[in-house]
Amino acid sequence: MDIEYLKPDDIEKRSMEIIEMEMRTNPPKKNKEVIKRVIHATADFDYEHNILFSDGAVEEALKTLKEGAVIVTDTNMALAGINKKILTKHGCEAVCYMADPEIAEQAKLRGVTRAIVSMEKAAKLKRPTIFVIGNAPTALIRLNELIESKEVAPRLVIGIPVGFVNVVESKEMLIRAEVPYITSTGRKGGSTVAAAVCNALLYML
Amino acid sequence: MDIEYLKPDDIEKRSMEIIEMEMRTNPPKKNKEVIKRVIHATADFDYEHNILFSDGAVEEALKTLKEGAVIVTDTNMALAGINKKILTKHGCEAVCYMADPEIAEQAKLRGVTRAIVSMEKAAKLKRPTIFVIGNAPTALIRLNELIESKEVAPRLVIGIPVGFVNVVESKEMLIRAEVPYITSTGRKGGSTVAAAVCNALLYML
Repeated sequence: MDIEYLKPDDIEKRSMEIIEMEMRTNPPKKNKEVIKRVIHATADFDYEHNILFSDGAVEEALKTLKEGAVIVTDTNMALAGINKKILTKHGCEAVCYMADPEIAEQAKLRGVTRAIVSMEKAAKLKRPTIFVIGNAPTALIRLNELIESKEVAPRLVIGIPVGFVNVVESKEMLIRAEVPYITSTGRKGGSTVAAAVCNALLYML
Repeated sequence: MDIEYLKPDDIEKRSMEIIEMEMRTNPPKKNKEVIKRVIHATADFDYEHNILFSDGAVEEALKTLKEGAVIVTDTNMALAGINKKILTKHGCEAVCYMADPEIAEQAKLRGVTRAIVSMEKAAKLKRPTIFVIGNAPTALIRLNELIESKEVAPRLVIGIPVGFVNVVESKEMLIRAEVPYITSTGRKGGSTVAAAVCNALLYML
């Protein structure tokens, strides 16, 4: 065993050097920053090939964040993973409606997921919005429907749910929607990944 | 595209069936429940081979949770991912000291990570404790040292940090420590994985 005692900032710097060294692709600079941050959060180099960006997605995200955006997440876990310090500094805020009692009540009544109901609530926000979906394909599917029917026009959708039922389909639906997106192909994703994408954008500000 | 409209409970049931079908190993029943829950949270079948348990780790965990344990996490993200409803029902609680102002202050003063300082604080708890480390190898290294010097005797350590610097070493150190553990080999892990392990245990209660 060979533990190197590094300072916190140096640990991150060294990690990023290792990731850079081991990456086998060379995506455009800003996309690469996002991909590196995801690999940093998962140690999974599959994401080098999995993460997909619509044209200019990162630029659109940075512009929106500079205007003071609301970030809407589909889980409290993704919400907890987002860097609040940078967010607040730029007049942005992050919200998640999943734990609201009225969301749970309505979901039960309708026999749908809480994720669906919380997306419908978020669609009514009047500020520039970035959606961050790391867990629930049902949230992403409902959001895609709301985009299609022009009930919401997000500035960016970070749509990276994880799982085995309707996950791949929900991502394919996002890619066809008329909205800037960052997504992942296949089943992989998660709150950690979605939060990492979001933080990569915040660190670029 | 072929979206199946399933009810929330059925989505989870179907997912678990798919995981069960695609798994290529057949670990002991209780360990398998944990592994399936991790694959459910990551869609990464590497964990089928990566997750390691000390003998009787799951049984020890269940016993401890029934006594009313404190679960200590190294990130607010892992904390957010743990099922509080079941936790509270069994008289357990979960804490994370990372965001405490005095932790940040002491870490800065000593030039160490906040994760280290928060482990030292948690080591002073007087109740049966389960540590859940999904992010910071520095937290796991410090915890291993505290176990070695008999300053703390956790009932279980879920030690699954992710990353590139000292992560593998911190897990090898845990495997050698005299403490029940659930860990993962290699670089992979994360808050999602650690929370999934924790929830798998809670669902078994």
